[in-house]
Amino acid sequence: MSETIYLDNAATTSLDPQVLNAMLPYLQQHYGNPSSTYSLGRSSRSAIETSRTSVAKILGVKPATLFFTSGGTESNNTAIASAVNHLGCVHIITSPIEHHAVLHTVEQYSRSKQITYSFVKLTATGEVDYADLEAQLADQSSAGRKCLVSLMHANNEIGSLLDIFTVGKISRKYDALFHSDCVQTIGHYPMDLLQTGAHFVSAAGHKFHGPKGIGLLYVSQDIKAYPLIYGGGQERNVRAGTENVYGIVGFAKALELATAGFDHDVQYIKELNGFMREQLILAIPGVKFNNPEQSLYTVLSVCFPETKQNDMLVTLFDFKGVCVSGGSACSSGDDAGSHVMKALGKDKTCATIRFSFSKHNTRAELLKTIEVVKEIFNKETAEVVN
Amino acid sequence: MSETIYLDNAATTSLDPQVLNAMLPYLQQHYGNPSSTYSLGRSSRSAIETSRTSVAKILGVKPATLFFTSGGTESNNTAIASAVNHLGCVHIITSPIEHHAVLHTVEQYSRSKQITYSFVKLTATGEVDYADLEAQLADQSSAGRKCLVSLMHANNEIGSLLDIFTVGKISRKYDALFHSDCVQTIGHYPMDLLQTGAHFVSAAGHKFHGPKGIGLLYVSQDIKAYPLIYGGGQERNVRAGTENVYGIVGFAKALELATAGFDHDVQYIKELNGFMREQLILAIPGVKFNNPEQSLYTVLSVCFPETKQNDMLVTLFDFKGVCVSGGSACSSGDDAGSHVMKALGKDKTCATIRFSFSKHNTRAELLKTIEVVKEIFNKETAEVVN
Repeated sequence: MSETIYLDNAATTSLDPQVLNAMLPYLQQHYGNPSSTYSLGRSSRSAIETSRTSVAKILGVKPATLFFTSGGTESNNTAIASAVNHLGCVHIITSPIEHHAVLHTVEQYSRSKQITYSFVKLTATGEVDYADLEAQLADQSSAGRKCLVSLMHANNEIGSLLDIFTVGKISRKYDALFHSDCVQTIGHYPMDLLQTGAHFVSAAGHKFHGPKGIGLLYVSQDIKAYPLIYGGGQERNVRAGTENVYGIVGFAKALELATAGFDHDVQYIKELNGFMREQLILAIPGVKFNNPEQSLYTVLSVCFPETKQNDMLVTLFDFKGVCVSGGSACSSGDDAGSHVMKALGKDKTCATIRFSFSKHNTRAELLKTIEVVKEIFNKETAEVVN
Repeated sequence: MSETIYLDNAATTSLDPQVLNAMLPYLQQHYGNPSSTYSLGRSSRSAIETSRTSVAKILGVKPATLFFTSGGTESNNTAIASAVNHLGCVHIITSPIEHHAVLHTVEQYSRSKQITYSFVKLTATGEVDYADLEAQLADQSSAGRKCLVSLMHANNEIGSLLDIFTVGKISRKYDALFHSDCVQTIGHYPMDLLQTGAHFVSAAGHKFHGPKGIGLLYVSQDIKAYPLIYGGGQERNVRAGTENVYGIVGFAKALELATAGFDHDVQYIKELNGFMREQLILAIPGVKFNNPEQSLYTVLSVCFPETKQNDMLVTLFDFKGVCVSGGSACSSGDDAGSHVMKALGKDKTCATIRFSFSKHNTRAELLKTIEVVKEIFNKETAEVVN
């Protein structure tokens, strides 16, 4: 695996060895059930609450507003279910470029006739038209229909960013609830959740060098949190099931490491991203980029000139040891292609490759990748597949 | 921790080091997102499908009928949600001694007016009255009301066992769906799920020396499986969210090890359980047992004579380095006490302690525990708390 160049960090990240080290005691000697009242149980409970307190401090909120889940998808589902089933929302305003964990959940509640939903207008580069959002909220509000606004903080395919503060303010102006899928931004930007005005925020550990199978849901103090999964009283009756103790410990450790490294890592990754962009412009005549100008710094979505082998591009990179995505991981095995590119009308004109970077990537890796890009796009590529 | 005597294996179990070894590559080099189509992603995908195939072979079912979840609680919730939201069940027959993951879920659907529910009659030792179950099903069926029967295979507190084959037959006779929470039995008995007639079966990795945070839901081939959590197409569109790859690998490895050891381990643990029972009878005059005669071999629920310190018993054992439970882990921090003991009318007359054993326990540990029992129940215990 040592020669692999991993440029798909928006899909998932490698687990930081320091995170694994923090997790291991809870995979070994500290195996008690956190609900057990003896010392072996209490040490698990204590690890969870210490983790929650650490995460809360980093995210600028009280520990009691944070609930650990099995991942970003469950967090998104829980937020939407709470809004629809318990908090009176009858209309959801979202966007066609949300992650499927939001879109398919919204569609499900629409199918079961519990809600109606609408899409906010987007710019060509996937940025929200805030005037349209406000107009829609005003319409719904004047009709007495309580809304949930569900908009992601950063798009996982093209990196477009939401002004989460503005959306928080507009939503609250119209007494709407606001959920933001922050799976691509928590662990990547300093975040002060209280300041955002969001009612629900979702995060996933494996997007910032933490473990898979663990996520977080923030629920603001001014609304009540409700479970999606019922059972024991874990997570203060909001998320039942024996806690994934080592996962929770790993989530907190990964977020601590990410936060400690922000000053250096954000700048470093931005520079990598810019370097890759420059090198691609030099290497491939006619190359374009799907990212808006202000964009998630970890993602570079490239619109390559169309080739005969559009459908094979990820595989061609893989042959050369470079891991990239055609869109998101979730759509990469999907014949239907990227719903994001379709929604933005880019699916017909682009051969899209998403490069997404982490602090572990190097310029040397990017230069090798540029060589691979040249081989794929500038040479007679037919011979590669024949 | 080396001196701790852990006799709470029904709450959770230690992770087998062989299981951890199997998991580690997926916490280290094999970190790819299983939805990614490059080789790093495919190796994660392959690990999941190899695990599924192994589990399927052990449980006597096709891999396509198995879905990995975040745990037993999510599996139970998914089964009940599927039956109510998608498969037409309007009445649930369950029992008052089910795990809260079933009971509270059923109560929730009742509160939202989607179902009615009733309890099946139980014997004094928590065994199902099959004639009553059939009578209730006949009533509901003649009224044209489709039922879900949700009954656990083995009770986690008192070890009562369900004749899962009989319930499967009766349920199918009345066109009802049958869900069984098998969290205490999968990994503890050879199971051939296809033969049980069950439509849904739940399991949890951490109950048989596998990791926390990973569970399994079996959905029989003659019904369609539906998601509780919507999003990406993972688990064949039945359970969205990036898969907990290392957890899935750990679940399968733990089940393989459990299965390979059944011949020896079941007998060994039965003997430990019997030995503990004998020693308790010798040590404590008037001691009784809550288990029915035919019972889950891992659990010994002891009805000690009442003491002034009933509320402190788990703590008194803890002071002496012995981990036991007052009921289940999920209720041990709960002031309301055990709902199981209450439902069986035992809450007022017993000072209940649950001992639950694993293959790692020894007779020497049990003899030490007997000494602790004697100290707590035969001596002036007032001094311990004063």
